[in-house]
Amino acid sequence: MNPALAINLPAVLAEVTAAFARYEDALVNNKVAVLDELFWNSPHTLRYGATENLYGYAAICDFRAGRPAQGLQRSLIKTVITTYGADMATANVEFERVGSAKTGRQSQTWMRTPEGWRVVAAHVSLLA
Amino acid sequence: MNPALAINLPAVLAEVTAAFARYEDALVNNKVAVLDELFWNSPHTLRYGATENLYGYAAICDFRAGRPAQGLQRSLIKTVITTYGADMATANVEFERVGSAKTGRQSQTWMRTPEGWRVVAAHVSLLA
Repeated sequence: MNPALAINLPAVLAEVTAAFARYEDALVNNKVAVLDELFWNSPHTLRYGATENLYGYAAICDFRAGRPAQGLQRSLIKTVITTYGADMATANVEFERVGSAKTGRQSQTWMRTPEGWRVVAAHVSLLA
Repeated sequence: MNPALAINLPAVLAEVTAAFARYEDALVNNKVAVLDELFWNSPHTLRYGATENLYGYAAICDFRAGRPAQGLQRSLIKTVITTYGADMATANVEFERVGSAKTGRQSQTWMRTPEGWRVVAAHVSLLA
């Protein structure tokens, strides 16, 4: 079925919402192994961060390994998760950090892989 | 077939590459009707821009209609298009504008709809 005709199937949306929540918990608690697990292990994976552009799973893991473990807390202001058919989804959030006046935005594209749902592309930025 | 097992099928990649090129041409030449056409006509569509967060197709069209028609030229530094199965894709580019020292990043998630390939989510930012 064309994914446009199967938006937000409840079972799929529940799966992606759970995967997204697991990622968010890992992010703010610096569970690097979980962050690594939830990105797709592929040279095609990419992540545009607030201050860097990372191409390929290996570069993303290297970045995670060197990430400061402090000051990671943030609050989600608005979350929009949308699923397209059975196997693809996007998760977009606005967030704020204590001590920052700028609103952050995080966009992820998720794919169902044989190993589970994985982020295949991500983009994080602060609103100018 | 799981999309993770069908990455960058040549015919699919060719279709998305053509759709992406059409979008880029419309963007730099301010072909608003084409920009509107290539975003998914849905309340689920969202676009995080350099200076605004837009939720839903109507908000995105309103933004396009009010867009300055000058100074839109840009050069793509790096382009990565990846397709997942037959119906979903991401397009990520780094770009630069004349007169700006900051590198831009544009991320799009594309979906095949009955009307053709459409952007279902986008995020544009300048590297800090």
